[in-house]
Amino acid sequence: MTETSTSEPPQFVIEQIPDIEDALKKQILSFHLPSDLEDATLYAVMNGGKRVRPALTLMCAEAVGGSVENAMQAAVAVEFIHCFSLIHDDLPALDDDHLRRGQPTLHIKTNEAMAILAGDNLLTLAFLQIAQSKFDESTKMKMSKELAEATKNMVVGQVYDTLGNLPNTLTPIEQVKLVHENKTGALIRCACVFGGMCSTQEQTAVDAIASYGMHIGLMFQIVDDLIDLLGSEEHVGKATRKDSEAGKLTYPSTVGVEESKNIIEHLKNEADRALEPLGTSADCLRSFNLWLAQRTR
Amino acid sequence: MTETSTSEPPQFVIEQIPDIEDALKKQILSFHLPSDLEDATLYAVMNGGKRVRPALTLMCAEAVGGSVENAMQAAVAVEFIHCFSLIHDDLPALDDDHLRRGQPTLHIKTNEAMAILAGDNLLTLAFLQIAQSKFDESTKMKMSKELAEATKNMVVGQVYDTLGNLPNTLTPIEQVKLVHENKTGALIRCACVFGGMCSTQEQTAVDAIASYGMHIGLMFQIVDDLIDLLGSEEHVGKATRKDSEAGKLTYPSTVGVEESKNIIEHLKNEADRALEPLGTSADCLRSFNLWLAQRTR
Repeated sequence: MTETSTSEPPQFVIEQIPDIEDALKKQILSFHLPSDLEDATLYAVMNGGKRVRPALTLMCAEAVGGSVENAMQAAVAVEFIHCFSLIHDDLPALDDDHLRRGQPTLHIKTNEAMAILAGDNLLTLAFLQIAQSKFDESTKMKMSKELAEATKNMVVGQVYDTLGNLPNTLTPIEQVKLVHENKTGALIRCACVFGGMCSTQEQTAVDAIASYGMHIGLMFQIVDDLIDLLGSEEHVGKATRKDSEAGKLTYPSTVGVEESKNIIEHLKNEADRALEPLGTSADCLRSFNLWLAQRTR
Repeated sequence: MTETSTSEPPQFVIEQIPDIEDALKKQILSFHLPSDLEDATLYAVMNGGKRVRPALTLMCAEAVGGSVENAMQAAVAVEFIHCFSLIHDDLPALDDDHLRRGQPTLHIKTNEAMAILAGDNLLTLAFLQIAQSKFDESTKMKMSKELAEATKNMVVGQVYDTLGNLPNTLTPIEQVKLVHENKTGALIRCACVFGGMCSTQEQTAVDAIASYGMHIGLMFQIVDDLIDLLGSEEHVGKATRKDSEAGKLTYPSTVGVEESKNIIEHLKNEADRALEPLGTSADCLRSFNLWLAQRTR
């Protein structure tokens, strides 16, 4: 594969991005926030993100015969959570990042107070977004619970990642797996499950989606570890080698680069296997899986 | 009235506090958080707070014939949101408070990273708490929406309070009202409405509770303004005169102390009037209203 084919998402994902961006912007404007908070929110959300999570929600919905239009309402909520987490992770007390996708991070662009509050607000808006959506009450409540659990796990992962104190009964590889599954895996799995919830298909289809989401979620963070270690700041659009400098637990620092690549390959195969019950309707999820495994930024 | 009678809540509220504290602690432990995050969460939540919001939920439930036991599940969620907001408000980038109820604030006791993450987590746990509660799905969804709206408004109030940029089409008194209704009023109103939602009574009862909550919510913050201006740090248990030093918009700085007291009296009377349809079943809410209006810390 060429560099281009692995550093850009598949074409059908790229085609969905304008719709996702429209939905995100429209939704933010619908909350009629004070103008400085609205500006900060738009700055942090509409920043050229890859939109991996909302794209997954849409693709998973399609793979199980759900409506992509309905799924967009849930996709927006997941992306709000992702964006909130980036805003807070970038703060001086956490990762102290000044650059995100080639642009100043929100607390650099505005100030720390605004970054803290805009993050709190986005986290809240995700739950408001689900509550205001047009799904039936039972689905909305399931989504709200799923989102709260995933967000809790994400914050727990961030606590482990930033402050350490991992259970010392675990081996190093178990520790890094625990961090990554929480910090990154939980919300990616949630994005997939939201797509699954958009259909009325039998439980096996939704279970397949959940299993796919779990495997690609962990894989996503291991690929990120490799990008941080091996990528150039110019290509990636943010500071690299931050993890090793901060002494963070990563797969390459725990098992080495080659074994990390083997684990990525294994997780990719497991994710593909999880999709088997869905047949050809999950082809786009298979292509996305391949891209996620091979991406270089 | 003596100092004691106005600085301590009514006896029936004091009697509820142990049950509220038990429920808060039990619920936090049920989430099986990493030990450092759990410690931080318990430190920030179990700190001798007045428990005004959960007490309101319980009292409002009782006033409309709802189960206090059921209401406790919703009361806990509201207090989680309140505690999250205190943790983040105390941060150096916001109010930079070192003392809360006579004890070091969470970021002083632990560190800023933990305070940011523990706040994010508590905000999330409030929604998880509602999603996991035993109310029927329709009630849970209404509560989740109500909580998300109140939290969004609270954060908006904090943005106005900390960063200014209020709509310049408003007069000074309209501006301070807007700040207070959002920053403090919204969550207190939500605490009351949650109590109202615990009953199956007719809409007029729930509307009465919502109107009561709206009036006491604004009143609560104006009383806080006066306590900040006139109270001693020793009596209040946190730094006082912070608002005036920070140049924040308050009722006394906008309309003077005497007019602030008149407005408090007016809001107290309006809150009592809102309760009229509930008859004697709302007597404890009337006593609480009186205490809220007269408290000195």
